[in-house]
Parts: sequence; structure tokens; C-alpha cells
Amino acid sequence: MDKLQRTNLYKQAKEWVLEAGQRIRETIDDPRTIQTKSNANDLVTEMDQETEQFFAGMIRKLYPDHHVFGEEGFGDEITSLEGTVWIIDPIDGTMNFVHQKRNFAISVGIYEDGVGEIGLIYNVMEDTIYTAVRGEGAYKNHHRLAQLPEEKQLKQAIFALNTTWMLPENPFISHKGVHELVKTLRSTRTYGSAALEFAFVAEGIIDGYLTMTLMPWDIAAGMVILKEVGGTVTTADGQDIDMLHQTTILACHPKLHSDVIGEFVDLKQ
Amino acid sequence: MDKLQRTNLYKQAKEWVLEAGQRIRETIDDPRTIQTKSNANDLVTEMDQETEQFFAGMIRKLYPDHHVFGEEGFGDEITSLEGTVWIIDPIDGTMNFVHQKRNFAISVGIYEDGVGEIGLIYNVMEDTIYTAVRGEGAYKNHHRLAQLPEEKQLKQAIFALNTTWMLPENPFISHKGVHELVKTLRSTRTYGSAALEFAFVAEGIIDGYLTMTLMPWDIAAGMVILKEVGGTVTTADGQDIDMLHQTTILACHPKLHSDVIGEFVDLKQ
Repeated sequence: MDKLQRTNLYKQAKEWVLEAGQRIRETIDDPRTIQTKSNANDLVTEMDQETEQFFAGMIRKLYPDHHVFGEEGFGDEITSLEGTVWIIDPIDGTMNFVHQKRNFAISVGIYEDGVGEIGLIYNVMEDTIYTAVRGEGAYKNHHRLAQLPEEKQLKQAIFALNTTWMLPENPFISHKGVHELVKTLRSTRTYGSAALEFAFVAEGIIDGYLTMTLMPWDIAAGMVILKEVGGTVTTADGQDIDMLHQTTILACHPKLHSDVIGEFVDLKQ
Repeated sequence: MDKLQRTNLYKQAKEWVLEAGQRIRETIDDPRTIQTKSNANDLVTEMDQETEQFFAGMIRKLYPDHHVFGEEGFGDEITSLEGTVWIIDPIDGTMNFVHQKRNFAISVGIYEDGVGEIGLIYNVMEDTIYTAVRGEGAYKNHHRLAQLPEEKQLKQAIFALNTTWMLPENPFISHKGVHELVKTLRSTRTYGSAALEFAFVAEGIIDGYLTMTLMPWDIAAGMVILKEVGGTVTTADGQDIDMLHQTTILACHPKLHSDVIGEFVDLKQ
């Protein structure tokens, strides 16, 4: 993909993301049917499904050779990242969508042969869009995001962290290390949308995000955006991300990355 | 205080809150001096201090018989809630103010002989104000907040909860009960502003808030607002709040209140 192709694809993707967001805003107060997926707290609504269908339909029409990898299953069966793949979470933070009618995002990452080329995270109700095109910096609306600062210490850092990972019986990470991390950090926040938590790290309003069970569509856009400001994203134990399967994530300021992995992360599997 | 006095006082307080918020917005990008108070993560800026001085000055001029009870010490020495007392947190969520330049609030509660008459919580950067006058309902901007719904179950509830209370060594609450609560709830959120967390419970976008170390100025406005929509506020073990000292807090949907206290809260002192 050359620069012109990237720019044109970015423009088209952004137009669709904004259009999908507008549809969601217009119907935010309509009655909803809420279903559950993997467990009672894994929610999905017809709006998640309709929004993904909208993207899948538009992409197939305009870019028939592209592939669609989406949370709700209206995309393709994806077994590799060869070619151009749109990785889509139509509503990231569905629980916030249902309970709060805000604090959720549309997340679209476009990858070519496994390389993240374009990322868009749209905080729909706030009408704020975080975007990046590989090599051209990251933006919040029309404002270019600064590179993450040179220096950062854990004791002055705020991390996004779910309380689940502090439970001894969580099957993913030793809770003791997470407890020590919480004691070391300045503070933690929990916002309930992985895409927005990535965007907030990129914006520098939090300094890291440690979590255990994300899917490619939760992180595809955020990875492109965060990398453009100098952030580091790996699995929680420092490995490269497998963009086809569930993964642990440590997305953070580069100065904090090795400290967190070296001193606090002890994965159970 | 009769109804007319309450209404007039509310109008004046709201005008000052909006004016103070505007000053903060206008200077949000100015360089700041950040100091610490009780510990390295208890931050304070000159803007906290200036804002409290603004309120104290205006109140003393227009209402010389009222008392001012504020976080930064520019008010009066308060040893009782007799008379009319303004309980003020000029910037609730100072860490968010410093790190994020958003997600903080001005919180003003006005009490007469210990009874909460007026509450105002101003989400400054979002320009959203939550208000209540006792007996007249609660509002978000000009929109009246609904009464909390009749039915609510813990397994479908979202609570605001700081990760600190999940640490075994926290001196306030048995972490085991908190862990069980986390496992029972649908999810938790951490926003970093007690006033906003109260407002969000009143708005119904979260269902409860459990915390250990709040001061009167963190909760004075939120208690008035939350009561107007039928919410319940007590200490974490169900006692009445002492509005002169640090306190634990359980602010939540009334259907959840006795369950949380009966099944999950075991205070250490």
C-alpha cells in the first residue's frame, strides 16, 4: 500500500466510522434487545450487529478484495492477516453502551499483510475521534497528539486496570504481582472500553493499560495509534501480539514497559 | 430556610460554580505548580486554592452569617454544622485535573443545621452540571434525573471501586469481602473523582460506589443529589454520615444497599 492509497483508504474509513457513529447517536434512546454471549456479563445488542453489518456491506462493495474481521461474525473467516484486513469492533464497551449510553467506541484498524496501516477509535457520544495513519502521527480530532514524554516513573503513573486481575482466582495472572503494581503506581482507572483505554494512553492522560483477555478487534486500531506517539504494545509478558486470537496486553509508556514486565507480571499460562 | 430562600441561594451558588468553572477552563493549559499534601499522591495546585478563595470571598461578602467548610483551608474552623454551612471541594479529582485536564468537578453542598439543602457538582471540562435542591428533584443541566429504577440486582450492577480496597493490607476493609463483591457484580469502574462518582450513581449510569476515605467536601453535594433520586448513602457499615470528619461511604441503589453491607463489608476499625 503506497502513501496515496493509505491516505484514500483512511479518508473512506473515517467517513464510514463517522456515519456509523451518527446512526448510533440518533438511536441511542431507542428500546434495545440485550443478549449475552460467552457469559452473563458479555453483552451484545442489535446495534453492535447492525453497525458491523454496515461496515461489512460497504467494504465488500467498495473493496471486494479486502477482508473483514469483526467481533460479531458478519465478516469473513479469517485465518491469516495476508492482504488487506479491516479489523472491526462495531461497539467497543458494549456494557457502557447498555448501562451508560456513553463511554463506548467504534474501533477500526486496517492491516496489510499483518502491518497496522490505519487506526480509528471513535468515542461516539463525545464525538471525539482518535486516528492514525502509519508514519504520519496520531490525532485527536484535528489536533496532533504529542509524542509520549521522555521520562516517566511508575510511582507517578496512572494505569487502566480491571479489578478482576486482582482476584487470586483469576486464571491469567498472579494477583500478587498485580497488587504490588497497584501499590507502586500513583493510581488506577477503569473505563470499560479497551479501545478508549488505548486512546487514553496515546493521549497521555493515562500511562499504561494492563489486561488479560482482549481480542484483535479490541486492540487493532489502538495499536496503530499508540505506536505513532511512541508507545509500546506487547503481550503482558513482552511477546509480540498474535492478531488472530485472544491475547494479554501491556500497552504503555516505553519507559515503564520493562519495569512492569520484569517486576510485576507473572502469567499463569 | 424557606423555599424562596433555598431557591435564591441555589441560583447564587450555581452562578458562582459556573463562573469558577469558566476560570478553570480558561487557564487549563497554563503551567502549574503541583504540591503534595498528606502523601506523594495527594496532589494540590494553585487552582484548587484560588478556586476555594474565590468561593470563600464571595460567600463572606454576600452571606456574612454563613460558614465555609472547604478542602484547602480558606474557610472557617468548623466544629459543628449549626447554621448555614457551604461545604466546598474546589477541585474534586485533583489527580485527574493534573494528569488529564478533565474528569474533575467543583463540588458545593449547602447544609442548614446539618440538613443538606442544595448540591451542585460541576464537571468543568464537559460543562455538565448536576444539581439538586432538597425536595425538588435532581437535574443534569436542564434535564430532570429519573428516580432510580424499582428493581436492581447486584449481579447486573456496576460499582465504582478503587483497586486500593482489594489489597489485603489496606487498613480499612477486609479485602476478602471486596473480592467477593467484585465477583458478584457485573463490573466495576474507577473514575478518580468522588463527586462525579456520586453524580453517576444519581444518573443511574453506575449503581453504587463503595469507598473508605472520603472527606465531607467530597460527598456534601453528592449526598443531596443522590437522595433526590431515591439513592441511599451511609457509611460502608450502614451508619449515618458524620459530616465533620473522614468517613467510609456506601452510596448506592437502595435495593443493593443492605445486600452489600450484609454480605460483603467487613470493616477493620
